[in-house]
Amino acid sequence: MKIIVDAFGGDHAPLEILKGCADAVKELDISILLTGRASEIRRVAKEHAISLEGMEIADAPDVITMEDHATDIMKAKKNSSMAEGLRRLAAGEGDAFVSAGNSGALVTGATMIVKRIKGIRRVAFAPVLPKGKGCFLLIDSGANSDCQPEMLRQFGVMGSAYMERVMQIPNPRVGLVNVGTESGKGNALMRETFPLLQDSGLNFVGNIEAREIPADAADVVVADGFTGNIILKMYEGVALTLLGKIKEIFQKSLKNKIAAAVVMKDVKTFKRQMDYNEYGGAPIMGAKKPVFKAHGSAKARTFTSALRLTKAYVESDVVSAIAETVAAAKSGSSAQELEKAESES
Amino acid sequence: MKIIVDAFGGDHAPLEILKGCADAVKELDISILLTGRASEIRRVAKEHAISLEGMEIADAPDVITMEDHATDIMKAKKNSSMAEGLRRLAAGEGDAFVSAGNSGALVTGATMIVKRIKGIRRVAFAPVLPKGKGCFLLIDSGANSDCQPEMLRQFGVMGSAYMERVMQIPNPRVGLVNVGTESGKGNALMRETFPLLQDSGLNFVGNIEAREIPADAADVVVADGFTGNIILKMYEGVALTLLGKIKEIFQKSLKNKIAAAVVMKDVKTFKRQMDYNEYGGAPIMGAKKPVFKAHGSAKARTFTSALRLTKAYVESDVVSAIAETVAAAKSGSSAQELEKAESES
Repeated sequence: MKIIVDAFGGDHAPLEILKGCADAVKELDISILLTGRASEIRRVAKEHAISLEGMEIADAPDVITMEDHATDIMKAKKNSSMAEGLRRLAAGEGDAFVSAGNSGALVTGATMIVKRIKGIRRVAFAPVLPKGKGCFLLIDSGANSDCQPEMLRQFGVMGSAYMERVMQIPNPRVGLVNVGTESGKGNALMRETFPLLQDSGLNFVGNIEAREIPADAADVVVADGFTGNIILKMYEGVALTLLGKIKEIFQKSLKNKIAAAVVMKDVKTFKRQMDYNEYGGAPIMGAKKPVFKAHGSAKARTFTSALRLTKAYVESDVVSAIAETVAAAKSGSSAQELEKAESES
Repeated sequence: MKIIVDAFGGDHAPLEILKGCADAVKELDISILLTGRASEIRRVAKEHAISLEGMEIADAPDVITMEDHATDIMKAKKNSSMAEGLRRLAAGEGDAFVSAGNSGALVTGATMIVKRIKGIRRVAFAPVLPKGKGCFLLIDSGANSDCQPEMLRQFGVMGSAYMERVMQIPNPRVGLVNVGTESGKGNALMRETFPLLQDSGLNFVGNIEAREIPADAADVVVADGFTGNIILKMYEGVALTLLGKIKEIFQKSLKNKIAAAVVMKDVKTFKRQMDYNEYGGAPIMGAKKPVFKAHGSAKARTFTSALRLTKAYVESDVVSAIAETVAAAKSGSSAQELEKAESES
């Protein structure tokens, strides 16, 4: 298996990306095609004594930054390491593409360069997040601010396939984010999506309230990209504020510092459980080939995790599973709507 | 000043409501008109030696439960303590109404019985929540799942008036919940609302990301009721999950328990800061007279806080301030849109 890697995506590129790749080559029995400035990759690798064995390099002179607009990947930054990687994936030069760079650009590039699975209306950004016990997939968490019901049904199909095949959760529970659990609740989008998910053949557990998400509401949490992004950011924001306050308490006085030292090991274990870097990142779902977003702040260990999940993403053949489910649905009752969807998109 | 109180709303009614009222009569120089089963109010007061001095009772045989549908207040439960209180408020028998009961029913009752301020399109549920330092108002947090841009502009106007006049925050910062800070970000609703808030004359600080809300993004956080409800519930859910985990750590071993005892006083202070019961509840904004929702789990102390805020709500005359602002806007450039809005609603 060959995984294409954006050597210049993320806060700690290229050094930590190269380290993560070197560990992955040893551990995972994969080969890697790096995209980015070849001379700089070689210089950094040499300087830090990182072996490039098992890795090739495809030169790309430019880099997409976090400040660039998502659509720049098609024009101003078409010679970037990210665009180059996606083109090589589309051309069949590798089995998957991983980047820790600009999420919006990656979503746009996945759609425009790799293209969508036939019948899929939109690609979705789907981070795996920690919950009280284990993890859940939040789909969509920001790729599509305005959604239609059929898009949300497809997010359920794609998310379910990923959690079952890659994260090894049998018969994953799919929940629809809403403001109440009864079927008539919520805004127009959620009310119209509910029956589609109910008839989807998925293990649909109904509407779920945001209050229950961090504990254990579902394995696949379906939302439009606007709502999903709010959930993702609130999760981070509340956790940061609360942990900051706890830290203040621990540092308030000498006796508190001593008490903190006693529980510190357990607090660190807990923080690691709640750290979504542990899960390596987020699949961009719905593209014809696996595209994976590693966390922007990924260091070597997290990037190796991202490559491990990407390998599972390829091996489990989630993309084919989604394509088959969508094709089956198309020959079924929702064929008309899908036809309409495709002519629109 | 006379405040009308639903003696049978909330998890601890009527006992804790009566206790809270008795304390408020002593502390706040107000009189109270209780609504609910008169005989039971007298029996409970006698049994617990609670003085009913300064309080009258308006008998109402029925109670709205948390399971009742919001619209039941107009039909099946029109003889409830909540409906009776709202009717007496509308009839001018008191200056404000407070209930710890069913929020949905209270929103419906405020709209249908007390009626909206002229020009206001929808009443909104607006809890005051703790942030890193101080508090913020989240408007709307659940009364209106589907919103139009003009409604959100009005939420900004109403929330700003409340925070300035009742919570004493000069020139409150108004922020629009969005998935990015730039003006073109978000879904169609937020993109169309942005310029309306920009031209509103409020201290509009632009789009705010959910990640910043718990720290200190704005004093008034404007959202449609669906998004606002997700924010409110995520806030609760993440805090509960994290504090539960911290508690587990503190109880894990004898040495951890000893360490926990050392910091417990500071942890309790922190929990009190983050406890939104401290702020007593949420105004229902946009009704012709002040309606206030006390937290459903309110005990006496929280209910007294709710009455204290309600007194400030009446004294600051927020309702007139909102009415004047809306009337001024109507004679200005947005007159046409408001006319259209009113004929629709």
